Parts: sequence; structure tokens; C-alpha cells
Amino acid sequence: MTERLVEPLSSEDCQVQPMPDASPAKWHLAHTTWFFETFLLIPHAPGYRAFHPDFSLLFNSYYNAVGPRIARSDRGLITRPALDEVFAYRDAVDASVADFLATADKAMLARTAPVLELGLNHEQQHQELIVTDLKYTLSRNPLRPVYRSDAAIPEDAIAPATEWRTFPGGIHWIGHDGEGFAFDNERPRYRILLEGFELASRLVTNQEYQQFIDDGGYDQPEHWLSDGWAQASSRGWRAPLYWERVDGRWWTQTLGGFRPVSPSEPVCHVSYYEADAFARWTGARLPAESEWEIAASGEGIRGNFLESGRFHPATTLPGTGAAGFFGDVWEWTQSPYTPYPGMRPAAGALGEYNAKFMCNQMVLRGGSCVTPGSHIRSTYRNFFPPEARWQFSGIRLARIS
Amino acid sequence: MTERLVEPLSSEDCQVQPMPDASPAKWHLAHTTWFFETFLLIPHAPGYRAFHPDFSLLFNSYYNAVGPRIARSDRGLITRPALDEVFAYRDAVDASVADFLATADKAMLARTAPVLELGLNHEQQHQELIVTDLKYTLSRNPLRPVYRSDAAIPEDAIAPATEWRTFPGGIHWIGHDGEGFAFDNERPRYRILLEGFELASRLVTNQEYQQFIDDGGYDQPEHWLSDGWAQASSRGWRAPLYWERVDGRWWTQTLGGFRPVSPSEPVCHVSYYEADAFARWTGARLPAESEWEIAASGEGIRGNFLESGRFHPATTLPGTGAAGFFGDVWEWTQSPYTPYPGMRPAAGALGEYNAKFMCNQMVLRGGSCVTPGSHIRSTYRNFFPPEARWQFSGIRLARIS
Amino acid sequence: MTERLVEPLSSEDCQVQPMPDASPAKWHLAHTTWFFETFLLIPHAPGYRAFHPDFSLLFNSYYNAVGPRIARSDRGLITRPALDEVFAYRDAVDASVADFLATADKAMLARTAPVLELGLNHEQQHQELIVTDLKYTLSRNPLRPVYRSDAAIPEDAIAPATEWRTFPGGIHWIGHDGEGFAFDNERPRYRILLEGFELASRLVTNQEYQQFIDDGGYDQPEHWLSDGWAQASSRGWRAPLYWERVDGRWWTQTLGGFRPVSPSEPVCHVSYYEADAFARWTGARLPAESEWEIAASGEGIRGNFLESGRFHPATTLPGTGAAGFFGDVWEWTQSPYTPYPGMRPAAGALGEYNAKFMCNQMVLRGGSCVTPGSHIRSTYRNFFPPEARWQFSGIRLARIS
Amino acid sequence: MTERLVEPLSSEDCQVQPMPDASPAKWHLAHTTWFFETFLLIPHAPGYRAFHPDFSLLFNSYYNAVGPRIARSDRGLITRPALDEVFAYRDAVDASVADFLATADKAMLARTAPVLELGLNHEQQHQELIVTDLKYTLSRNPLRPVYRSDAAIPEDAIAPATEWRTFPGGIHWIGHDGEGFAFDNERPRYRILLEGFELASRLVTNQEYQQFIDDGGYDQPEHWLSDGWAQASSRGWRAPLYWERVDGRWWTQTLGGFRPVSPSEPVCHVSYYEADAFARWTGARLPAESEWEIAASGEGIRGNFLESGRFHPATTLPGTGAAGFFGDVWEWTQSPYTPYPGMRPAAGALGEYNAKFMCNQMVLRGGSCVTPGSHIRSTYRNFFPPEARWQFSGIRLARIS
Repeated sequence: MTERLVEPLSSEDCQVQPMPDASPAKWHLAHTTWFFETFLLIPHAPGYRAFHPDFSLLFNSYYNAVGPRIARSDRGLITRPALDEVFAYRDAVDASVADFLATADKAMLARTAPVLELGLNHEQQHQELIVTDLKYTLSRNPLRPVYRSDAAIPEDAIAPATEWRTFPGGIHWIGHDGEGFAFDNERPRYRILLEGFELASRLVTNQEYQQFIDDGGYDQPEHWLSDGWAQASSRGWRAPLYWERVDGRWWTQTLGGFRPVSPSEPVCHVSYYEADAFARWTGARLPAESEWEIAASGEGIRGNFLESGRFHPATTLPGTGAAGFFGDVWEWTQSPYTPYPGMRPAAGALGEYNAKFMCNQMVLRGGSCVTPGSHIRSTYRNFFPPEARWQFSGIRLARIS
Repeated sequence: MTERLVEPLSSEDCQVQPMPDASPAKWHLAHTTWFFETFLLIPHAPGYRAFHPDFSLLFNSYYNAVGPRIARSDRGLITRPALDEVFAYRDAVDASVADFLATADKAMLARTAPVLELGLNHEQQHQELIVTDLKYTLSRNPLRPVYRSDAAIPEDAIAPATEWRTFPGGIHWIGHDGEGFAFDNERPRYRILLEGFELASRLVTNQEYQQFIDDGGYDQPEHWLSDGWAQASSRGWRAPLYWERVDGRWWTQTLGGFRPVSPSEPVCHVSYYEADAFARWTGARLPAESEWEIAASGEGIRGNFLESGRFHPATTLPGTGAAGFFGDVWEWTQSPYTPYPGMRPAAGALGEYNAKFMCNQMVLRGGSCVTPGSHIRSTYRNFFPPEARWQFSGIRLARIS
Repeated sequence: MTERLVEPLSSEDCQVQPMPDASPAKWHLAHTTWFFETFLLIPHAPGYRAFHPDFSLLFNSYYNAVGPRIARSDRGLITRPALDEVFAYRDAVDASVADFLATADKAMLARTAPVLELGLNHEQQHQELIVTDLKYTLSRNPLRPVYRSDAAIPEDAIAPATEWRTFPGGIHWIGHDGEGFAFDNERPRYRILLEGFELASRLVTNQEYQQFIDDGGYDQPEHWLSDGWAQASSRGWRAPLYWERVDGRWWTQTLGGFRPVSPSEPVCHVSYYEADAFARWTGARLPAESEWEIAASGEGIRGNFLESGRFHPATTLPGTGAAGFFGDVWEWTQSPYTPYPGMRPAAGALGEYNAKFMCNQMVLRGGSCVTPGSHIRSTYRNFFPPEARWQFSGIRLARIS
Repeated sequence: MTERLVEPLSSEDCQVQPMPDASPAKWHLAHTTWFFETFLLIPHAPGYRAFHPDFSLLFNSYYNAVGPRIARSDRGLITRPALDEVFAYRDAVDASVADFLATADKAMLARTAPVLELGLNHEQQHQELIVTDLKYTLSRNPLRPVYRSDAAIPEDAIAPATEWRTFPGGIHWIGHDGEGFAFDNERPRYRILLEGFELASRLVTNQEYQQFIDDGGYDQPEHWLSDGWAQASSRGWRAPLYWERVDGRWWTQTLGGFRPVSPSEPVCHVSYYEADAFARWTGARLPAESEWEIAASGEGIRGNFLESGRFHPATTLPGTGAAGFFGDVWEWTQSPYTPYPGMRPAAGALGEYNAKFMCNQMVLRGGSCVTPGSHIRSTYRNFFPPEARWQFSGIRLARIS
């Protein structure tokens, strides 16, 4: 699956790092394989020797406990190993993992199952990042190259009217209950006391966001957090990332090409600051992550995911009753990313997976159009700094009931 | 009172801005007066004319709704008006306020009472900042000048052993209940469901923090948040702000002069990142702001405040049973600064007082040795970015019971 | 004399450092006294003890051989010693110097005469800088404070037409010939072979420079050096420093107040990049420093200097035949600041006076309206980086004959 | 020839831009072809249509008169066109140039000969840059990849002793005399009056430079220009670029691999600041560019050039009498890069080739081991900012005779 994502790409497309936050596809491919090698094969597979002694230096992301590594911003400079060698690395490690699984005894399988499961989920996260980062890379090229010409067919749909769905207050359970896989940041499950609240029945659309722009939203500090106003001013934000004004109309970069902004599609590639300012401008607010989880836990996990091949958010179809909690865009919440009460990170290097990032980031929920569908769940917590815009991030409104 | 704080200072001492976060004393003096002029006199006092047409440009801090202003980092460049003229400004506005209060009718007094009260609390906040910022200014001078030679007498006390005080879980009320003054960020009072917890009976001391240093705490990334490690590394942090190694011993800048670090005094001038890393190193954690409030609301508001004339944290005296929740140092909590459920900022410019800063900041509780004693209460929420160290900020530990 | 320059200033005016390049007046006052103390009294006056052991740390500018010092950008943070103490420092050192001169024998006087002379010339340089830096400080204050209300009376004169004065080629002597004081960078005198050239008979006026602006000079890269275009673009230069557009007309900050730009006065406060771009736009070029010196050495040293009390360039008066080589504005030359063939810096710390700055700077000639008149001569070489604009720097044109 | 230089490289190697100054090989390949297309074919070849309408946006380097272009630092982000398409672009333009030359009449050939010649020389400059920039790219990879394993065989030679060659003073002609190709910056030929001088008979070796290091040269500000000391300190320079200390011995990156520094080879990859500091430490100085030209014009153009396939400077062989003016390393001179008296840039966009860079750069002479041999001559002027180290730049000493 991961390999299929880079099929339409040249080795040059896979090489480039357009900003420190967006890593090259080749690096993603090698890093996820390094993860299996480092945390499964080396400690557990008898006699396994590292594929290359220096790959840990190149493909360790941030695990201090594993050892030194190149600076994050230098990932795009690593022209060797070539893409072909990275594929060979992947094949070799995949084969060793298969071999390990075929020969390990039951006790070993039980002991290593959590790492294997984590490795697969980790790979899914990087599948999403490959596409997300690539979109940013291609956007920096004035030729406006296309990732897949069959992706993201424009459409002229009409989004249903927004309704407010009411949820009662009281004591609720939040977090993962222990069945199936979940990250350590979704645990432990805990109780929270909330007041009643209302959530919008669908995502904010481009049309609605454009009204905010047309109303002068980017020029009115009263809607903005102080930090957000400073960012928007110094970076010259006037619209979501990838939007461009052409002959009086907004166009946008998509993975299927440059095309007019569709009014009915969910707005995407906004920062937390923009999402928050938009919400204040409407008189509403963003949901707390607990509110979102309470609402979404009653819905099935259906939506526009990576597998749709659309690579772009889709208009919510009226009449289906779907609130669109899953897929399309990650939904910014008003919740800073903090540990759940009593959270215990895993021991060793894997304890660095989530806990050390719990500062200066906001929680997003629900997955996007480039998230693998089997990766998401209602307790899933994604997180990015409030100024991040290159993720497929959008807006759902909330208010007090 | 405010004037008395600058008595030991020259007009030059009051002029200087050593970093964007720390404003000149002269600016603080003028800004607090501008606050009364702008929010009380101009809208409410009949016939009042602004003392100087351009002072709003100079002394507005961040109220977008009031109009333009000089950049925050330029406050130290304003040599005119001179300090004497700022005192004249203060006298004139004080006189006008007195006149307004003497002549206003009851309805007017009732209507303006909230602004007056806010203005007085605002002035108290800036009293603290005058001293805090001045400490930073003096520290940049290699002559190590002294603010008050009678301040902060060193002492060789022994801090009592730390005990863990247990608090039961359950539903608690948090926030201000409506009697007396409180800021909008302390409201509305709301219910929270918490698990049981334990808080340390006293603040972390310099001696304990020095063990963290000696143990290599600043060299071990496993204790640190990712952002914290990056900050500590890039800024070369090896100890709290103002500490300096002299002949194998730690010394520190105080407002009473340069002197050896007292082992028994509470550690001070640490960032959130350092407080958090220290707590992890001990196996404990920082308290949530709600936990702190629950514990502190049972204590009287006694402590080492601005009025003590000490201008430095004091060793907790054993045998008094005092937990030292108030005064000495602001206590970092693990809680990001967010609005209480249902918070409503004031209308107009005063709505900018707190709400727009609710991002990328952490809550601190309890006041410090330079906070006016009448300014603090158990529901009081202070907030600073996690990298701030020039505030009198320290550490209390918490853990799950 | 130096003291008289700061008479109109408050101690706050003397404290502030608005950018790293512009030092506080108090620092200039102390630094020039430190120079006499360090290079005359301490090595030569028997029994002399430093006024204060730490003043060298504060008031050494850049002499590595003398010892450590605070960062240049921190000079504005030194509130202690106060201005009064600096005056006391100056008085004490002046008295010791007088005492030294009264009691030293002839041999000692002969040996120390060069240092004394250098110290006096050094003091004159800082007299100019006090005024130049203060102008920048006051300009950052939106109240537009005035240095001296009797300075720089505006005038409506008419500048004479520019004529081209022709100078023959051949072998010329350049540099100081050994009589009277000169800096090491004016020596040794050497021969140069030049082609014939022409110099403009007067400085470029504001009116002429405004034509460059009106013609789109700041928008046309073809006139600009590559580095200059980058600077002008990134800093948003649209006119000389201190110019401001008010109601369709250009105004400018002067030390006598904010007033309309006088068309006939010499343009001032332009960078080398702007001077060079202007010259290209006219089809001419800037003079080489040798050309300038050849032309100016035939003129008497008359002009609008510090002593005029004008503190602003003056219109060249027609009919006087004066070319205005001296005073008014420093004239940018096209010559990078390099050593004359065979230059030998002084031994010891004083060798750092000039030589180590001979890179990335351009030579200016002739002195300005804030240069002491007795300080200038035709061989005098001033130097600043090509982007500097806060000096009183202007333009004279040259071309090949 | 140009294509052969990239033969050992993958398309990924050709894609990457490790710093703004070092462009990707793919960009160099396309830019040199764009040069022929833009300045020869489009204006002169009847009916020629641009290969791709947007390539000028991508592959224009800095010609403002030709139109807009991507930022220099973004060249590494252009993954499309792929390397193959750039080769196709080169083939197509080469074919069109051949066709143009075959069909143009004599008048046209005469008119376009200068552009054709300039284009060929331009291509040679970029041949050198491809190799130079690639060395830097590979050096950023901790795997230490090798460009050509047959390059730069280490050697244990012994450099001959340095002798001082004397040149008499007097009037000399400098610059190109009009026969054969030369850039506009080598013209017009002009007369200069110089004092007698001496030049070292060979380049400074690694062994000699290492003595400077061992003597504490990087810790002694007295040898350094002020700007140089600031650069060396802030960037942490302790040795030439690419040198690394391994087990008490200096090693260096070469295009043939990582190997011990050869004591006898010329020192390479030093900045002007280091060259100048080294020269002062020895008591000598760097040559003026005119001195260098006078000395070198009497020598044949022989040396270690790109064609040797060595890609690394070689030890000067004793007994040959060769001074090594050409090849091996570019020799820093003490001359800022300025126009020769009366220089006239070409009209139109090609006038931007050299003139607009004449500020803040120093002249280097003689070509290096990666310069095509037919490209160099004694009047050739190269130029780089004084802090540049990634060029093959070294040191020859001079002194007054």
C-alpha cells in the first residue's frame, strides 16, 4: 500500500523536503521500515543484523533513546541511499519480519504483538504524511504539477443546511476502552463532567469561509487570538493555504491539479488560528475534544478516506444524515494536547512516541481524505501546532446548548 | 504605592527595556494611568480631555479596539515624555479620577465601579511587573547593581521535609463564585470531576533542584518535553535564570544583590519546561490548576508578598504547617491556559484583557514575593509561555493518590 | 564641547540605544574618557589607578587587546553608572590628564603626544556620533521630539546649476604627507596613476533625488547593485531615511523638528546602494576616493560643520564658487575601504583603530554638518557599510572626462 | 562535456540544493541551455519557439531584464521537469543552435558570435559549479558518498620550499587586451602604477595551515578582520571546510572519498577571512589582483584542471619551477571586486552578467582543479563574498619587496 502511494512519483519527487515539517517520501518509506527493524527485529529476531550500520543515523526520526540522527531539516539532502536502495531495504526488512513471524514461538509472538501492531499503525500515519507532504512539495513548483490526474474531480454539489445537534451534559467516559489497538495518548479511559452542548451537523464549507474573507475577517483583530493575529500578519495570510486569486475568483492547488475552489466542499488547510477566528466571527466556537468524541462515538466510521482515491475533501451529501465526523478533513478542537489523567507512556524509546509532544499543540479529530480508513476511530487524537496549515485540517462549529 | 516601588531608581533605570517581554518602569507607570484615563475618564467623565493627544499611541499596551500603538519592543526608546512628565501625567489623572468620584451620581458610580476595580487590579499587576522587569534589567549590567540594599537578607534555614497531602476525587467547583473582584478568566464557576490526588506540602527547594542539575538533568532528554529540550539546548540553559557558577558554587542575582544560592529557599526563575522536567525526574508531575485550586482554597491567604520588602522567595518555616500556596513563587501547573466552559469576555476593548492570550501559555497559581498581597486569591490564574523564566516562577509537585 | 552637545538632553535621552550601530550618548561620553584613561593615564601616569575597576568592561568599544567587554548591542542597558557619575568620571580623568601634562617631563610629553592627539581626534569622532545617533533615537519616538529648537531653520534657496569640473589624468600623490595629525589609514602617502575625470561642482539636491523617486528609481532593478536591490526590497526603502510622505508631500525629521523637505538642500541619509543607483540613473557614477582627494585638496576647509549649530545640511549658495567638498554631508565614493599600499597599523591595541575594519565598507569623504570643523582634512577617510543610512551621507557625481 | 560530469550521479543527486549558494546539478544543466535559448535562439533564430513557456520562470538565474523567476533558494524544490526532460531540453536546444549556425548568413553569424562565445564560457563556469556544489551536497550526507572512486588518489609528496619572487614596481598594463574572449569585467585594459612586490613561489600547504591552527590562530583575534572574527566565532570555524578531526588527525572530504589531509597539498576551502588571517599570522599579506596578474601573465596556462579527473588540488612538484598560478585552487586576493576604470557593461540583460555584483565580494584568480583548462587566463577575475568556503579557494602569500 505504501509503495502504491509513490507509484506516480519520480525518484526526484520522493527526494525533496520543501520545509522542515514536511519530509521527503523516500525518508518516510525508509523510516517506517527502520521502525520495524529497530523495535521488532533487532531486539527480538535472533541473529538479525542491521541492513546498514548507518541507516539509524539517517532514518531515526526523534527517538533520543535509540541514538543520534541527522537534523530534521536535513532529510532532503540524503540523496544516497537512492530510492531503489530504499525499496530494497523495505523488501529485506519485510522478508525478515515475515520470517520472524513464521518462526517465532507463541510466547515471542505474544510479547512482540504490541510492537508489530504499533509498527503497522505507524506506517499508516506515514502513508498519510507522504501524501500530505507531497502536496506541499508540488505546490512550490510554479509548473503546478499533478500527483494523479484521476484524483479530485471537481463538482458542483450543494451542501445541506447546517443543523445544530444537541448533546446532554453529565458524566461521560472519554478515551479508549482497551479493545483493539489504540495509542498511549488515548488512555487511560477516564470520566469527565460536561455541560450540555451543540455541534454543527456538517463541516464548514468553502463558501462559508469565503464570506469570512469577504467580510474582512483577516483584517479584524477582534476575532483573533493574539498569537494568531501576529502569525497571520507576519506571514501575510489572506486565505487558506493553497488558495490563489485568479481573475477575481479563488482557485486552489489539489493533488489532481489546480482548479476553482468548490463552494460546497469543506474548507481545508486552515490553521487553528484561522479556525478559531472563523468560529468567533460566527458567534460560535470550536468543539472541545471530549465533546467531539461523545458526538462521534455514536457514528459509524464511514467517510472519504485515502482509499477513495479522491485525495481531496468532498461535499457532504444531503439527505444521508451523515455528520461527516470521519474523513475529509481533520477537525480542529479547542483542546490543547495534554495527557489524559494518569497516562503512562510506554517504557523505553517507544515512550517518546507521543508524550514528549504534549505542549504547544492542539488536538484534531476524525481523520482526513488522506488518512487510511482502518486507521481512524472516535478516540483517535491527532495534534499539530496552532499555526500548521499544510495538513488537511478544517472546521466544525460548536456552541453551548 | 506604585511610585514607592520606583523610589530607589534613577530615571535611567526606569527608561530601559532589556527584552521585548520586560517593559520599562516608566512605561508601566504611564500605562496604568492611561488605563484609567482611557476606560474611566474619557468615556465617563464629562468634559474630560486627554492629557496628551499622543499618549495613547505610546502607552496603549495591546487593545486593538482603542487604536494604534508603538511596537511592544520599542517601549524602551521613548525618552520623551521624561519620567517627571509621567509623574505629572499620573498626578493629573489621579486628580481627575478623584474629582470624578467626588462628583458622579450614584448611577454613574455603580456603572463605573467595575472599571475602577479593574483599573486598581490592573495597577497591582503592573506593580509586580515593575519589580520583575527591573530585576531582569539590572541583571544585564555586569556591575551587578542593587535595587534595595535592605532586601532579601540571606539566611541559613532548613526547609521541612516534604509530605504528601491527599485530596479525594469527586465533583468539585472551580472558579470564582461571584463575591468580590475577579478577572473574567476566573469565571464562570463550573464543576469538574477529578480523581484523587496528592500535593507536596511545600515548594521544591534550591537544594533539590541542584540535585537535578548535579544528576545531569539538563543533559538527559528523557525528562524533557520535545520543545523544552530544543529550547534548553539552543539557549544553553544549565541552571535557573540568574544563577551563576562562581568558584564551584552557585550564586544568584537578587534584588538585594548577588549572593550564594540558599539551599533551603524555593527554587525560582525556572521555565515550565524545567519545572516539568524536574517533576518527571522525581517520578512525580506538576499539579493541574484545578487540583491546586482545590487544595489552596482551604488555606488562608498568608505568605511572603510584595509588602514584606524581601523581594525574594523565603524558606518555608517548619512547624508552621503552612504549605506556602500563596506568595514566594508562582507555581507552574500542567494546565494550558484555556477558557472555562462558557466564559464570556467583557464587551468592547476590555474583552481583550485575557481571552485573546488563551493559546501557547501555561497557568501559574498563587502569586509571588513581588505580588501585592491583596491582589491574590485561590481562583487567580496567571499565565506565561512555557519558556518564560524572568518571572518569579517555581515548582510544587503532585502525584496520583 | 562634548558636554555642550548633551546639554539639551535628559539623562533618559542619553541612555537609549535604538539599534546596535547607534550607541547611547552616555556611553559615548564615558568611552572617550575611558580612551584617555586606558591609553594615556594607566600606562604613563605614575601611580594612576583606574577610576572604577569595571568601567573597562562597560566602555571598551572593540579593543580585543585591552580585554573583555559587554556586547555592543547591550550598551543601552547600562543604567548604572548614572549620567552624573559619568560626568564625574570625565571630570576626574580630565583632571588627571591635566595633572599629568603639568608634571610630565619633556621626554614623557614627547612620547605621549601621539596618544594625546589621537585621543582628542577620537573625542571629535564621538562628538559627531553623539549627534548622529541621537537623531536616530529621537526619530523612533512618534512624538517627534526636537533636539534644539533653534537648529536647522528651513529655507527656500535655489541651488546653482551643476557644472562639471575637469581634472587631468596622470600620476598623483594620495594620502597624508606627514605634517599635522592624521590617522594610520591615511598613510603612507603613495602615488597613483589616474585617467582624467570630471566632478560635479555641487552635491546632489533633494529635488534631484526626488526626480529619481518620481521616475520609479526604487522600482527599477537595472540601476541597482544586486545586494542593494535585495536590501532596498527587503527593508522597503522608498526614500532616504527620515523622509515621510504627508498629504502628498515629502517631510523629513531634522534635529530642529519635523519639516518639509527643502528642494535645494543636499540629499542626505542615503545608503551607498541608493547613491550608486542614483548615479547610474543619471548616467554618471560616484567618484573614486582618489579623485575626490585630488579635487578637494585644492580647496580650503570651509563649510557647514558642527560649530554652525545648524545640525542639518545647507543649500550650496550660488555665486560663491564653493564646491562644498567639506561639511554638509559625507560623500559616498565608489572605493571600498582598503589599506593604502604599505600601510602599517600602530603596534598594540591602537593598531585595532582602523585596520581591522577594512572589509565590506565603502569610503566616504569630506565631513558633514555634525563633524567638528577642525577634525576634517582632504585626506580624511571615513567608512561605513554600504547599507548604512543613519549617517549624514550624501552624493556627488563624477564621470570620465 | 557537461553531461559527462553528471554521469556518475543519480537523478536524486542532481535534484538537491543543500544551501542557497549551491544549486542542483539539474538546475545548472537546464540554466545553461536556457541561456542559449534566451539570448541566442529567441532573439535571433527565425521562427524559434521556446521549448516550454514556463522554463524561463524556473531557469533564469538573476536577469531582471528577462523577467520573473523562482527564488534562488527554491531551486532544489523543482522536481518537475525530471532530469530526463532536462536532457531532452538540452538536446532540443543544442539541435536548434546547430541548425541556426548551419543556416544563418554571415552577417547574422558575426552579430551573434559574441553571444555564442559568452554562452560557451557561461557553460564552462557552470561545469565548475556543478562539481563544486555537488561536493557540498555529498558532504552533508553522513554516509560520506563518493563522486568518483577513481578521483583524488592520496599522495605522500613533499612540497618544495617557498621562495620569494621579486617583481619591480612601475607602470603596468592590467586587463584583457582585446584578442580572444574575455568577460566585460576584464576590460578595459588600463595602466596602474605599483610599487615593487614579492610573491611566494607556491601555494600555502595544508601543513603550513595546520601550524596556524595548532598555534591557536582561530583563537587570536589580532590576526583577524573584525567581520572575519565575528563570522569565525559565530559559525564555530576551527579548520577549513570539510576538515574533520578523527582520532587526533585531520581528515577531509574529497570527491574521491574521505581521507587524511595530505600535508603537502595546497590548503583549500578557506574563506577570505581565513586566508587573510593566515597571511597576517605569517607577517605577510595576500596579493593585490594586479600583482597576481603581472606575475602570472608571464607563465603558461598549465596546471591541474577539471580535465585531469583528479577533482582535488595536487602537491606542487619540486624541480619543475612551476609557481602553480593556474589550476588547483582559486587564489584569494586582497582586492575588492570593483569595475576597472571606464568599464562599460553590455547593453540589455547581458549587462547584468557581472557589473551588478561589484560590492561586498573579493577577487580570486587562477582557476581551480575543477575549472575547465581552456576557460582560464591570466586576466580572469572570479569573485566571492569573503565568507565563502565551498569554492576550491586557497592562499598565496605576497609581501613588499
